[in-house]
Amino acid sequence: MNAPTATPHLLPETALRPVPQALIDALRERFGERCSTALAVREQHGRDEGSLKAPPPSAVLFAESTQEVAEAVRLAAQYDVPVIPYGAGSSLEGHLLAVQGGISIDVSRMNRMLRVDAEDLTVTVQPGITRKQLNEAIKDTGLFFPIDPGADASIGGMTATRASGTNAVRYGTMRENVLALEVVTAQGGTLRTGTRARKSAAGYDLTRLMVGSEGTLGIITEITLRLYPLPEAVSAAICSFPSIEAAVRTVIQTIQLGVPIARVELIDSHTVRMVNAHSRLTLREEPLLLMEFHGSPAGVKEQAETVQGIAGEWGGNAFEWATTPEERTRLWTARHNAYFAAVQSRPGCRAISTDTCVPISRLADCLLDSVVEADASGIPYFLVGHVGDGNFHFGYLIDPDSTEERRVAEQLNHQLVARALSMGGTCTGEHGVGIHKMGFLLDEAGAGAVDMMRAVKLALDPKNILNPGKIFAL
Amino acid sequence: MNAPTATPHLLPETALRPVPQALIDALRERFGERCSTALAVREQHGRDEGSLKAPPPSAVLFAESTQEVAEAVRLAAQYDVPVIPYGAGSSLEGHLLAVQGGISIDVSRMNRMLRVDAEDLTVTVQPGITRKQLNEAIKDTGLFFPIDPGADASIGGMTATRASGTNAVRYGTMRENVLALEVVTAQGGTLRTGTRARKSAAGYDLTRLMVGSEGTLGIITEITLRLYPLPEAVSAAICSFPSIEAAVRTVIQTIQLGVPIARVELIDSHTVRMVNAHSRLTLREEPLLLMEFHGSPAGVKEQAETVQGIAGEWGGNAFEWATTPEERTRLWTARHNAYFAAVQSRPGCRAISTDTCVPISRLADCLLDSVVEADASGIPYFLVGHVGDGNFHFGYLIDPDSTEERRVAEQLNHQLVARALSMGGTCTGEHGVGIHKMGFLLDEAGAGAVDMMRAVKLALDPKNILNPGKIFAL
Repeated sequence: MNAPTATPHLLPETALRPVPQALIDALRERFGERCSTALAVREQHGRDEGSLKAPPPSAVLFAESTQEVAEAVRLAAQYDVPVIPYGAGSSLEGHLLAVQGGISIDVSRMNRMLRVDAEDLTVTVQPGITRKQLNEAIKDTGLFFPIDPGADASIGGMTATRASGTNAVRYGTMRENVLALEVVTAQGGTLRTGTRARKSAAGYDLTRLMVGSEGTLGIITEITLRLYPLPEAVSAAICSFPSIEAAVRTVIQTIQLGVPIARVELIDSHTVRMVNAHSRLTLREEPLLLMEFHGSPAGVKEQAETVQGIAGEWGGNAFEWATTPEERTRLWTARHNAYFAAVQSRPGCRAISTDTCVPISRLADCLLDSVVEADASGIPYFLVGHVGDGNFHFGYLIDPDSTEERRVAEQLNHQLVARALSMGGTCTGEHGVGIHKMGFLLDEAGAGAVDMMRAVKLALDPKNILNPGKIFAL
Repeated sequence: MNAPTATPHLLPETALRPVPQALIDALRERFGERCSTALAVREQHGRDEGSLKAPPPSAVLFAESTQEVAEAVRLAAQYDVPVIPYGAGSSLEGHLLAVQGGISIDVSRMNRMLRVDAEDLTVTVQPGITRKQLNEAIKDTGLFFPIDPGADASIGGMTATRASGTNAVRYGTMRENVLALEVVTAQGGTLRTGTRARKSAAGYDLTRLMVGSEGTLGIITEITLRLYPLPEAVSAAICSFPSIEAAVRTVIQTIQLGVPIARVELIDSHTVRMVNAHSRLTLREEPLLLMEFHGSPAGVKEQAETVQGIAGEWGGNAFEWATTPEERTRLWTARHNAYFAAVQSRPGCRAISTDTCVPISRLADCLLDSVVEADASGIPYFLVGHVGDGNFHFGYLIDPDSTEERRVAEQLNHQLVARALSMGGTCTGEHGVGIHKMGFLLDEAGAGAVDMMRAVKLALDPKNILNPGKIFAL
């Protein structure tokens, strides 16, 4: 899901920490014009794709090397000033907001591919490179990096939020695909976690501790990733179903059979209608699954036949196949345009997005109960999902000026999260906690686990200068 | 690799911490006969399959529930006494030794399967269940748990050491296969990490922090694991090669092509000879690969043909196939008996095992250079490896009474680790750090990363009572 969310413009009570002019002066002296205090630049760096708001950071530093990030952090630490790493700005839950003041460290200029080891299926990059830039840079190697959170996010940001996307059902998330990191610590030191070896039992898994830490434990300055051979054959299919339940049951059975499906995305009938209107398509206005199979030509054929057989049992019909890149792109247009189509279906609206993920056996129950609730609310919505993982997103399309609609949408989100947690699921499959889900995290993990997170945070960042006020209150 | 190691009987300088009689009395009062101070019981719990030695713990508590583990930890914390969790005792690097004194908490009686969710491909178990017990318990579900570190280790221990084994090339390690945990903290509290959802972006990845922490951050009392559908077809093959290089090049190309091979194990010609002598087999005394393919019948056939084609280019010959379980077992006998065959080839010897893992492109160089050194040393050895991961084990077969042979073997190990690190690899692919590799960890991770591990340890266990003296010195 790569859609902006809109959430109440409420922030946890917090105090802006002072940013002494002496720090700004020191940064200007060291970095010259690359330290900007222009309001437009600061405002751009003080928000993300969500709609929470906070005063902008006091300055933005455009760092060009690990050394510069480390120097900036040391200066900030000297003055107890928060630092907020910034990549592509595509996060959704308020991750980038300077809720306690401070300076933004923009790493988008650190966007080089440092080395590709095609034989090892690994690549090492700077954090500012985006996933599309990365795939462009490696296109001659016969390899690709599969994680696609929709937005053309930076690899550093994807690492920091433990992102995933449509390919995760086959290739895993950033958790499984980050091998090693270079990190600048809260003290301005630099260290490396992990190696390029595929596995290791060498001490605490600092790599996985950093992945998903949302900039609160260190600033990621290099990432070593796993790559995958471009599949010999790729086949995509679109299939309509008489009900959401039929579509979801097809997915559940596919996963349970161990079919190595590469992508399986659900789009509900509301959303198909919006997509048809937006893109002048004539898709059947029924729930549909978009699927992709990767493998050898024979393997892809076999997988596709298996899934087609399962779908048939659930009344799936109108299988449409695409094997050329152009045909595939056309099929995937429906998925990629879903958000924009939905937002345009109600002019002036904003979408409040959910991100629950449940064990696959509970997916149908979780989805269907939530559909009933959403329908009863009267608020229009779209519904899409990485259903192979048990992860899906409602987007409640509210009038941003209506306090009542916002309240109802947040209430629906609350009910959905409570339902997902009661089914052994999580409040966030891939968007992260940021500011918006701090309460949900406490519900999900419990006070003991959140206390353990706090203890780790305070141990690594005793001055609480690394993206403070995110994930949990200290 | 499931073989005992033998290493110098040297321990880092450390002081035994006092275990007050009042604590023993309190444990006896609470747990009765399940708190044992019998010397034989204590000695059994004060060692592992490695050969490092330390005085035994002062008492052994056979815990039967999470609540009991928590109570025991609270009592120990009250007296600042170390607690060392004990599962099956199969670790290799001194993990279980009471180097600072304390009490052992044996969780082997906590060996129940708590729930299996076949539809979700997950299972939740107590830590004392062994991997064979687990697979027996789920055998009617059509699912299996693939991780096999050789020894019939406990799932708790495998989690604590981030174990892997022959199937990791396809199914990953404990890092990828633990979804959620229940953990008793150093304060005697209980918390849960993770959920049964396949992915989550909900805060710090405490699950992965605990996996591989070797009992130093918490005592694992429940584990939720991923399971996999039993493959529709399984095919195993054995193939001899004119050289180690030819065998390894075959593996490298197989991995680079993305063939989803389930197992690929190397056995060198020395070891084949030992296995033939031990098991009265007539395998060609050449380096060989043992392979296994999982999938649909057609998929398995296709994978096998691809690999056979690659092997042919490298002079691989005498492909022998096995598709029935009995034939497969016979083929795998060579691998499973390798350690025992090797040790019996030199009566009275002990094996010093290595555990390096390197990026796959460097596997041939790393192996071949180390073979040259081992050959030059004059010390007999065996060589086996999970080569699909870049992980392999030398076992130097030394006379335990010869200080010189021990010195030479440790020197070979040192050279091998240095070589692996210089190639971007790790000192331990799957055995963990324990006591034996504390120096190697520092070489590999660097002082900054080890300092970060120390900071985490002190934050979570300020009294340093959870398996102290392991992974790093405080």
